[in-house]
Amino acid sequence: MNSFSFRGLSAFPLTPTSETGIDERAVAAMVERAVRAGVDSIGALGSTGGYAYLDREQRRRVARVAVNAASGTPVMVGVGALRTQQVRQYVDEAQAEGAAAVLLAPVSYQPLTDDEVFGLYEDISAAASVPVCVYDNPATTGFSFSDELHAAIAELPNIAAVKIPPSPAEHAEERITTLRNALRPGTVIGVSGDWFAAPALIAGADAWFSVVAGLFPEVAVAITQAALNGSGAEATRLSADLEPLWTLFRRHGSLRVMATASELLGLTARPSLPRPLRELDQDARQAVAETLGSLRLQ
Amino acid sequence: MNSFSFRGLSAFPLTPTSETGIDERAVAAMVERAVRAGVDSIGALGSTGGYAYLDREQRRRVARVAVNAASGTPVMVGVGALRTQQVRQYVDEAQAEGAAAVLLAPVSYQPLTDDEVFGLYEDISAAASVPVCVYDNPATTGFSFSDELHAAIAELPNIAAVKIPPSPAEHAEERITTLRNALRPGTVIGVSGDWFAAPALIAGADAWFSVVAGLFPEVAVAITQAALNGSGAEATRLSADLEPLWTLFRRHGSLRVMATASELLGLTARPSLPRPLRELDQDARQAVAETLGSLRLQ
Repeated sequence: MNSFSFRGLSAFPLTPTSETGIDERAVAAMVERAVRAGVDSIGALGSTGGYAYLDREQRRRVARVAVNAASGTPVMVGVGALRTQQVRQYVDEAQAEGAAAVLLAPVSYQPLTDDEVFGLYEDISAAASVPVCVYDNPATTGFSFSDELHAAIAELPNIAAVKIPPSPAEHAEERITTLRNALRPGTVIGVSGDWFAAPALIAGADAWFSVVAGLFPEVAVAITQAALNGSGAEATRLSADLEPLWTLFRRHGSLRVMATASELLGLTARPSLPRPLRELDQDARQAVAETLGSLRLQ
Repeated sequence: MNSFSFRGLSAFPLTPTSETGIDERAVAAMVERAVRAGVDSIGALGSTGGYAYLDREQRRRVARVAVNAASGTPVMVGVGALRTQQVRQYVDEAQAEGAAAVLLAPVSYQPLTDDEVFGLYEDISAAASVPVCVYDNPATTGFSFSDELHAAIAELPNIAAVKIPPSPAEHAEERITTLRNALRPGTVIGVSGDWFAAPALIAGADAWFSVVAGLFPEVAVAITQAALNGSGAEATRLSADLEPLWTLFRRHGSLRVMATASELLGLTARPSLPRPLRELDQDARQAVAETLGSLRLQ
């Protein structure tokens, strides 16, 4: 699994986590669902996979479970942490567990400077033996990348991809084109914010790092294949059909919605989020249940 | 040390940290300087004390070193962490080491809801046996408290104080008055952002949680005493004299400036910040050295 293209659809499963530990069996079940549906890769320990809330041993176990359950489908593993020292350790351990790539966000407490973030990627790209994906997620890290910084980091060895946050759909083409022109040729552009995937893939993004595919991979596979095979109108229609789900994602955060969905599906026990994170209240749970029902997501 | 008023001046020392560990001797030296100068309390493991970057054992050791070096001056200990479970553990260990109070920020990765933050304080205030200070620092946590949320949290048992971020000096009176009217009577209001201390104390804030006092306590004691003893004009003048330092704080972050200052003073070795944090570049170091010299800070 040393070749990892990052292209196409990457499914990001949850790591159901409570005060007593993580639910490894649920992680395996979600990875298996995604692989059966034909996703191109698995993104274990992403933000949806709760990496920031897990300790070293839990991260190692999730990487192992995901790689085993993926049975050959490549697995990218999130390795972000506040200290470079910790990131190095997580990279080593993810690689030892069979990760085909690593995903690194500039996790912050003190707001980081551009030089500090560049230095982080310089240190880690030199230490990693698998490709590194730069994870740009200002909502969780508080750090905003400029395209100049993305371009400088993309020149480092081992930096193979960037994962960018959503823009408004009507700006997808401008956003992807501008970033493409800034980056070293060959750098893979992947997108987050599931509602942004169809417009971004149609506009030339290479990959969708998908939350919904962690639980409902079939519809994400269908959107990705339509968008990448020239059937943009169908991708747009399929994504528009999911608007009630995207609305819940934007309102409550996709993690809380998907955690609730995984409980409703019976894939894990309740609660499945670590405190201080809380589950949705009763009204919102009901809205999730109704939305899954009306969209026939199961 | 079970009575802790939070009032007056609290000095927040650095925890010099490199890739090989923490400099406990430097922490002790800084606490001793502050105590000799007559600060009212010590704030160990604040943001300046780098708590977010330290592991459990390092936090325990810093708490112990600070309490010992403070020789009777009360020590508040920062206990923030991404998981409530970890915060509980840090509270227990800080208390075991003699902390007279704990300081808790809603450290975030997933953006937290108001209900989640309230739940965090509910859980921790019930678990703590010392007073809890609510730490409001949107720059590091990404979470913004409303005054309604501050008011609700202040009603919980054991919540004794709030530490707020700076407002523009010209809004100090409005800010302190509005917050005072929102909070349960008796809740201590402490301020951060050293340039905001004089106007806020003059406007009726109770305490200054001070970065500069971690290294240069004399001038902070003078500002605090002037402001709290009716000599507002003198407090304003003394604070204005430090404007070159405040400018560096705002430009580079007070942590990087103070880390550089501690190295220039010979209190610790270089580097003293954990990666990915980096020290100031040569020009900025020179500016810090010149500013300390011209302000006779040593």
